[in-house]
Amino acid sequence: MAGNSLGTLFKLTTFGESHGEAIGGIIDGCPAGLQLDMDAIQKELDRRKPGQSDLTTQRKESDTVSWLSGIFEGTTTGTPIAFIIPNADQRSKDYGNLKDVFRPSHADYVYEAKYGIRDYRGGGRSSARETACRVAAGAIAKQLLLAEGIEIKSYVSAIGQVELDKPHTELDLNAPENEVRCPEPSSAKAMRKAIENARDEGDTLGGIVTGLALEVPAGLGDPVFDKLHADLGKAMLSINAVKGFEIGSGFAAAKMRGSDHNDGFEIVDGKPSTRTNHSGGVQGGISNGMDIVFRVAFKPVASIGKKQQTITREGKETELEIKGRHDPCVVPRAVPIVEAMTALVLVDHLLRNRTTRL
Amino acid sequence: MAGNSLGTLFKLTTFGESHGEAIGGIIDGCPAGLQLDMDAIQKELDRRKPGQSDLTTQRKESDTVSWLSGIFEGTTTGTPIAFIIPNADQRSKDYGNLKDVFRPSHADYVYEAKYGIRDYRGGGRSSARETACRVAAGAIAKQLLLAEGIEIKSYVSAIGQVELDKPHTELDLNAPENEVRCPEPSSAKAMRKAIENARDEGDTLGGIVTGLALEVPAGLGDPVFDKLHADLGKAMLSINAVKGFEIGSGFAAAKMRGSDHNDGFEIVDGKPSTRTNHSGGVQGGISNGMDIVFRVAFKPVASIGKKQQTITREGKETELEIKGRHDPCVVPRAVPIVEAMTALVLVDHLLRNRTTRL
Amino acid sequence: MAGNSLGTLFKLTTFGESHGEAIGGIIDGCPAGLQLDMDAIQKELDRRKPGQSDLTTQRKESDTVSWLSGIFEGTTTGTPIAFIIPNADQRSKDYGNLKDVFRPSHADYVYEAKYGIRDYRGGGRSSARETACRVAAGAIAKQLLLAEGIEIKSYVSAIGQVELDKPHTELDLNAPENEVRCPEPSSAKAMRKAIENARDEGDTLGGIVTGLALEVPAGLGDPVFDKLHADLGKAMLSINAVKGFEIGSGFAAAKMRGSDHNDGFEIVDGKPSTRTNHSGGVQGGISNGMDIVFRVAFKPVASIGKKQQTITREGKETELEIKGRHDPCVVPRAVPIVEAMTALVLVDHLLRNRTTRL
Amino acid sequence: MAGNSLGTLFKLTTFGESHGEAIGGIIDGCPAGLQLDMDAIQKELDRRKPGQSDLTTQRKESDTVSWLSGIFEGTTTGTPIAFIIPNADQRSKDYGNLKDVFRPSHADYVYEAKYGIRDYRGGGRSSARETACRVAAGAIAKQLLLAEGIEIKSYVSAIGQVELDKPHTELDLNAPENEVRCPEPSSAKAMRKAIENARDEGDTLGGIVTGLALEVPAGLGDPVFDKLHADLGKAMLSINAVKGFEIGSGFAAAKMRGSDHNDGFEIVDGKPSTRTNHSGGVQGGISNGMDIVFRVAFKPVASIGKKQQTITREGKETELEIKGRHDPCVVPRAVPIVEAMTALVLVDHLLRNRTTRL
Repeated sequence: MAGNSLGTLFKLTTFGESHGEAIGGIIDGCPAGLQLDMDAIQKELDRRKPGQSDLTTQRKESDTVSWLSGIFEGTTTGTPIAFIIPNADQRSKDYGNLKDVFRPSHADYVYEAKYGIRDYRGGGRSSARETACRVAAGAIAKQLLLAEGIEIKSYVSAIGQVELDKPHTELDLNAPENEVRCPEPSSAKAMRKAIENARDEGDTLGGIVTGLALEVPAGLGDPVFDKLHADLGKAMLSINAVKGFEIGSGFAAAKMRGSDHNDGFEIVDGKPSTRTNHSGGVQGGISNGMDIVFRVAFKPVASIGKKQQTITREGKETELEIKGRHDPCVVPRAVPIVEAMTALVLVDHLLRNRTTRL
Repeated sequence: MAGNSLGTLFKLTTFGESHGEAIGGIIDGCPAGLQLDMDAIQKELDRRKPGQSDLTTQRKESDTVSWLSGIFEGTTTGTPIAFIIPNADQRSKDYGNLKDVFRPSHADYVYEAKYGIRDYRGGGRSSARETACRVAAGAIAKQLLLAEGIEIKSYVSAIGQVELDKPHTELDLNAPENEVRCPEPSSAKAMRKAIENARDEGDTLGGIVTGLALEVPAGLGDPVFDKLHADLGKAMLSINAVKGFEIGSGFAAAKMRGSDHNDGFEIVDGKPSTRTNHSGGVQGGISNGMDIVFRVAFKPVASIGKKQQTITREGKETELEIKGRHDPCVVPRAVPIVEAMTALVLVDHLLRNRTTRL
Repeated sequence: MAGNSLGTLFKLTTFGESHGEAIGGIIDGCPAGLQLDMDAIQKELDRRKPGQSDLTTQRKESDTVSWLSGIFEGTTTGTPIAFIIPNADQRSKDYGNLKDVFRPSHADYVYEAKYGIRDYRGGGRSSARETACRVAAGAIAKQLLLAEGIEIKSYVSAIGQVELDKPHTELDLNAPENEVRCPEPSSAKAMRKAIENARDEGDTLGGIVTGLALEVPAGLGDPVFDKLHADLGKAMLSINAVKGFEIGSGFAAAKMRGSDHNDGFEIVDGKPSTRTNHSGGVQGGISNGMDIVFRVAFKPVASIGKKQQTITREGKETELEIKGRHDPCVVPRAVPIVEAMTALVLVDHLLRNRTTRL
Repeated sequence: MAGNSLGTLFKLTTFGESHGEAIGGIIDGCPAGLQLDMDAIQKELDRRKPGQSDLTTQRKESDTVSWLSGIFEGTTTGTPIAFIIPNADQRSKDYGNLKDVFRPSHADYVYEAKYGIRDYRGGGRSSARETACRVAAGAIAKQLLLAEGIEIKSYVSAIGQVELDKPHTELDLNAPENEVRCPEPSSAKAMRKAIENARDEGDTLGGIVTGLALEVPAGLGDPVFDKLHADLGKAMLSINAVKGFEIGSGFAAAKMRGSDHNDGFEIVDGKPSTRTNHSGGVQGGISNGMDIVFRVAFKPVASIGKKQQTITREGKETELEIKGRHDPCVVPRAVPIVEAMTALVLVDHLLRNRTTRL
């Protein structure tokens, strides 16, 4: 009950600390018979890994996954799929000075309060390094979804004050990704500039990722508590630094009238469709066959280069200046994580839905 | 795996359709020895029930709970607590015309798509009537939290275009509730006016509820997937009509810089505290002892009095005018539901936290 | 986490005390589209109910089930199926004298030790009356299995010293049930005599129920921990008074040699089959298509008419003579309970197995 | 939902095939603050590992565990504890001939039937090699129990026809273990002889392990479905080759009368105690403070040296002679496995019991 598992039928359990020997996980419940494209999995990890551009932390991690079980001659066997990702660049000495002090807006203090002990090196279990495991597992989920015709896409729709104000239907989602993972070139350029500015000032930025799931059949999601968007929301809110989640019209819905907000039905190409998609592809907690669209808000990275007010483990006030290698903005690297979490939630509900009818 | 349970140690499972014989639920995992105030529980239900003012649906339901087990001489015994709430005013004939047509932005279509069968009377299982069960169970959770010194509060902070722009720390949260459940009188007046206008035009409004949990000890919430705010988010998103959730700075965080956003620590009255609370009381998924503050966005009610475009079960386009008794705005009635869900999540994590240390 | 649920996909949660207002339960996860035969369900309850012959307790309970949700026009809708069974004959005054004393080999002492409080009337939650809920839910499970061609059967194979020594393949399992539910007439007669003798001496008897599941397809059961026979074993051991479970050769296997015990394969009617069935229909935790055969040992009823040594709540030694209406032997009434538990386990694994392959 | 997890609060998930790269597992929910004795853990693995005497398979495996996370400076941190055990001696070529044929009373056929694919090398996931992971995790559970004063012990009480007929109270359980792990020297000698005979004839033997848990406080176990002995039974039945489980009087109870079977209470040293222990330390599914005593029946090893009748994957009848290195009797090696499973179940219920009362 310690919260390191996600999903019910397609269940991922992860382990590992930032500066331990390795991180990794077990996927229990992956159906047998899926032929895996191992290169495609590694590519997903490469999209998340540190050091991929001058906008990210320079920690060196190849993030190479070893698959230990559950795959026989390239095909899933139905037994647990275990994997490990070694921690190559464990420059723990960078963190010695954090043993007795709590970094503001990090999890140092709360881990100490909860457990009475913490692996202080690099945030230990609370480090975003853990998300590499989500990406590895999510990559398998993605392949399973693709086999069912479902496609997962995400992109950066805001960095700091720079916002992309086009809906996903007006973007070229198949264009090659740029460094900030915003598919609109001029916004991407402005975002890059904003990150550079923040980085040069020893500061950090937040932003927003728009998540998409396309060609999802109607019927996924379970009433009452396990609504599809509730499970998506939980999955996104479990990603480090996320402060908000909205689906479809989201917070804007609060200001609308029912007559404007309702998604009237029509028949398009012989199939039920909605004229608008304020619902974001989910009604009553169940997918309705329209595009699933949601937005995820990330706070600015807590590790800044500037001096901060804080306290020690002994309860004394002190000042802190964080050294080490940190991202000025994690939002571009968060895109594959959002996709992975989306895929994990959808695969789980896809399998759950197999038992809905006699 | 059909999604009708919430929680792990303090687990609520609900049942019931809008126009069936009764709705109800079972709480499994309530600790033994809690002396219950049954009147206080009924008062929570009264805050949610229909017909409480001229701003709500006129469906008549006393929402009187019968407790069937798990309570002996007024005290919980540790065994399952079952309860039922009869459906008194089952005016099913209002719904006969909905048998073969899908109401826009309701769950009619997706239930049909998922199950191949649906109880069409009043939305069946997808009706917000189900939330009465959450309020009943949440009322017990609240009493258990109070025994530990934790207080749950919520209020309406926006209705349509009317927004309350004071933080909770500047409001009198102990004043008697008004009809719209906004603690600031002038905003409340404007909100009431907005609802009346919408109602008179056969239209509906959405809004925002601010959720609070006060005096929560540091240490609740589990890394990695079951972060406290992730579980809160899921719980809120599972409430009918909710489209968004944010904690602390929420979506605004996306526009801030780390140096502004970080909550520096200080010592106040000998205890660790943060100078600001952009974290909303949760860091790294674990409560840090500050006020837990979040916001929940509700879309406008989908049942409007105006004519709408829709389709039939047979796939023909048609027009629909919904009769029946509906709320012009459910946000005031959602306040006790948000509180109940908050209480259920916190009790669960409070119990989970008992096994964190040797 | 309080242990009142069984199953993962087809999940039963029960509630209720022996002398409370009602007992009942919720089935979450029953697939939509199952047309129910309500009479057949009630018949299962009648097989378990008290007072059905002079060999059982004379407590009067009609055990009439009310179905509250999840069924629309006789067909399951996929939403939770809730039911209650009122406690009609709550002769609680019989139990006033048990408030302060612990009955030997009952659960009085352990409930007090665990919870610090107990509903002492008739054993409260620990009463075998709770098994009526299992039978009600199991009856639905049986109908779902029948729709897949799977048949559940059980019978009494021993009462006290009287043992039926024929295998199930030599018995007429479709003959009408007699009072002791042993399909072999001469054994049945001897068993009846043994129960009468015990009853007349104020004593009680135990016995053995043989459980069967026929026409189960190969492939049900999950490695490693949720082996089919492990889940069956747990389900049986959770029935009141059960002290042992064995499948196939069971304890006798401990004395056999591998060369005698192994079930060699052959082809019969073009299909894989085993020449013997020491495995009891389960190999490596997964059904192999042969008859599933297991045995369940019941201890003698703890409520005897004779004077017993015991202690009070205050820790004083005392003597106790139990009044009230008790069964001299519950084994015949246990047959429908064993069948219900078998059905619940098999339905769950049948649904689980739907997600095994791509 | 693929069944590779055990426990609810102290949850073990295992992975790995017999001849893959490694086996291992993750423990989620181990409380923080437990100082581990790593040598003691390895010693448990050594008790299970192959090649420890001339009575066991000669497969060479050092079974050295690598701990990857959740332990910081020798102490548990509350985060997931992951471990791997490399498969050193993967002599897969021994198994090439098993690709297309099903070994009798092994899991080859049912894995193929269930998944449509199987890792045929050495039984893959169904190999008893998996139990090494249980022993590793169980060793941590044991240390946690010891910190609470609870002691787990098991021993061999029968091998083939040789039975030890003394109760555990008359045995010296602290004497050094012999090769067959039977604490009574003359029985041990006879058991050794029996195993040698079987081995020399290319045959195999089963047997019985008696499991004990001493100094367990009253109150562990949850009604109704998660009774302590039901969870113990499931855990034991999930061990490879187990065909039966009984607690206390077990199957013998079926032949007893209530007046003989009931465990009358008395006060011993000021504390409640029972005069007999037919209950085996568990009443109504909850521990009563007496010794927990149960017996586990193992069938003879399915891999025999003799020629057997079987079928191919294509459904042709054929003969099979199994090569490779196999145990003539696994019962002595099963003792640490039974202990590990006992510890895992008890730790889980110990933690669960922390939330029983306000």
